[in-house]
Amino acid sequence: MEIIDISVDRFTYLSNQVSDSEGHGHPGEEHEATQTLTRIITDEGIEGYCFGGNPRVMEHIVKSAIVGEDPLYREKIWQRLNQWQRIHKSGLSDQEIAVVDMALWDLAGRCANQPVHKLLGAFRDKVPAYASSMCGDELEGGLNTPEAYGDFAQMNCERGYKAIKLHTWMPPIEWAPDPKMDVAACRAVRERVGDDIDLMLDSYHFYDRHEALFIGRELEKLNYLWIEEPMDEQSVSSYVWLTEQLDIPVVGPETAEGKHFTRAEWIKRNASDIIRGGVGDLGGITPLIKTAHLCESFGMRMEVHGGGPGNLHVLCAMGIAGLYYERGLLHPFIDYDKPPPWLHEIPDPLDSNGFVHVSQDPGLGLKINFDYIKKSKI
Amino acid sequence: MEIIDISVDRFTYLSNQVSDSEGHGHPGEEHEATQTLTRIITDEGIEGYCFGGNPRVMEHIVKSAIVGEDPLYREKIWQRLNQWQRIHKSGLSDQEIAVVDMALWDLAGRCANQPVHKLLGAFRDKVPAYASSMCGDELEGGLNTPEAYGDFAQMNCERGYKAIKLHTWMPPIEWAPDPKMDVAACRAVRERVGDDIDLMLDSYHFYDRHEALFIGRELEKLNYLWIEEPMDEQSVSSYVWLTEQLDIPVVGPETAEGKHFTRAEWIKRNASDIIRGGVGDLGGITPLIKTAHLCESFGMRMEVHGGGPGNLHVLCAMGIAGLYYERGLLHPFIDYDKPPPWLHEIPDPLDSNGFVHVSQDPGLGLKINFDYIKKSKI
Repeated sequence: MEIIDISVDRFTYLSNQVSDSEGHGHPGEEHEATQTLTRIITDEGIEGYCFGGNPRVMEHIVKSAIVGEDPLYREKIWQRLNQWQRIHKSGLSDQEIAVVDMALWDLAGRCANQPVHKLLGAFRDKVPAYASSMCGDELEGGLNTPEAYGDFAQMNCERGYKAIKLHTWMPPIEWAPDPKMDVAACRAVRERVGDDIDLMLDSYHFYDRHEALFIGRELEKLNYLWIEEPMDEQSVSSYVWLTEQLDIPVVGPETAEGKHFTRAEWIKRNASDIIRGGVGDLGGITPLIKTAHLCESFGMRMEVHGGGPGNLHVLCAMGIAGLYYERGLLHPFIDYDKPPPWLHEIPDPLDSNGFVHVSQDPGLGLKINFDYIKKSKI
Repeated sequence: MEIIDISVDRFTYLSNQVSDSEGHGHPGEEHEATQTLTRIITDEGIEGYCFGGNPRVMEHIVKSAIVGEDPLYREKIWQRLNQWQRIHKSGLSDQEIAVVDMALWDLAGRCANQPVHKLLGAFRDKVPAYASSMCGDELEGGLNTPEAYGDFAQMNCERGYKAIKLHTWMPPIEWAPDPKMDVAACRAVRERVGDDIDLMLDSYHFYDRHEALFIGRELEKLNYLWIEEPMDEQSVSSYVWLTEQLDIPVVGPETAEGKHFTRAEWIKRNASDIIRGGVGDLGGITPLIKTAHLCESFGMRMEVHGGGPGNLHVLCAMGIAGLYYERGLLHPFIDYDKPPPWLHEIPDPLDSNGFVHVSQDPGLGLKINFDYIKKSKI
């Protein structure tokens, strides 16, 4: 089998999410937005799919790296793309490699007639999920006060979630960030949901060491499960320092560059208590399962960053699983359970006990609405 | 799909290899010997195979751990067997787990109609091999003198090998071990094959620190590629000490207990320059690929220990591959290229350039002679 092409379909849809000036998503006016579907095409007619992917990057960088290769040689292709990043710094991000790698895993699963978690060697078919909120906002009835976070937490518990993670207020909100407001929101949620719900905080990512320590100590009193990325991850020494001070587990690195190689150094330096990584941070399923194996070798937990089918399949194949699947981002104004128009079903349905179930269909198991994509193609 | 049984066929064959009192293999008089074939049987008729496996262990320990499970849940099954070792110390060795795990990978490949290295995400289809000798002996025309090692090395170079590893003299030979004789054999081989052949030494495994240092320094002068397991691997500090002293890469751990967990600790402590592991040492393909991922995360090479289809498929899927496949053990009196009676073909054919090629058939790709096994069953 041979890859003969990689193509990216761009199509439009109506979105009710907007990005603020820092790039955080919030609910907003309905407007036309674009999405892409990357497809890897073989000479045998089998294709692999992944949403996302930059058309220019795939056409001008990736195509020449993969056309002519056997698509089942995922390791060879991933290693080549990893090396190509040295030259193609500005275009070939880990996110783009992740799209290619996930499309290749999707193709392999379709070819083998197996879901990806079974290709990897499965462990489980469902994982508990936490409700992961959007960042704070200033919308009435949204996430604009500690009490609003409490209201939303209660709603999520009623929906079946057994765990909740807060993303709090960040710039460009004028008065943010504010460690005391973060703690106030965390306290409001704990008081509302009681002691049986696991709670986590993912706050502003550029606090200094003592602001992070202050928040961590308060979260210890509130019996939070972990604190995530409160400082710039480029300073590993800051994380070594914080992890040594705090009892509450520090989770990271998440957005730090360097894939599984960076995770290895953090482990060696005891820079966090729980390792973090997702398909988008690392460059696909291939490096994410490597990171899981690295962590298992050191008896460390890896909490998977972000949702979506790639992360979910890896979670279902991990020996030492993370505790939770990250479901979201959620907001009182947005119906997460409604599939986007390019899918017939969402990939991470939640049952009433707070578990997300992985698809048993071949590959990543996405129920793609090809008719919609064709109709809405740009 | 569900596992409904695990069975072990015992059968006889004529062998011309004997074990000495310490367990090392040598050529010997033809005699009847026994071999086993472990098979995992499913309700859908698909089976997975691996040679080896202790009938009592499979019947009394493994069966109750795996019957009723989906055979594609390799990670779940491996983790359970790993935990069961805590109680079943004497029976459930890593070697037995390796047999189960490899049979499950074989089954998964047959089910997906793909060879195992493609299930893992392939990188390559062939790897260079080194000729790995049996331990020294006292047989005329065998491996009884440094010159005999030289003769055999020359024969292997003519056969196509570009690399050779010596196993030297060990107890119960009366005058062994002897560091000076090891060095003499290594020198004789280097002088015979010239500078373009990679050479390695795997000597007696219980030298003390200064004997190991003496041998290592001599190997540096002889431009050897690595020194392997010259001391008891239970003393990690000895390996930290030796690795710090020597320029020649120290390879290990090999037979140390503890799977990928032990490899992680050796990496953290800089106890070797190159990590070592094989399916038999670690408990199958599942922990071996984890170890490969661990090593890649630290930019370290892993040289795969031992031959056979499991090791070969992993070598063909590693991002940072080891340099060589270990082919053997070889001896002037033994024809390694002749398949044993239970196989129609050997799993690791060597081409004239010194490369071993992996099978493209589904699963592990073994060409099993079921008729012979049936006919010779005990």
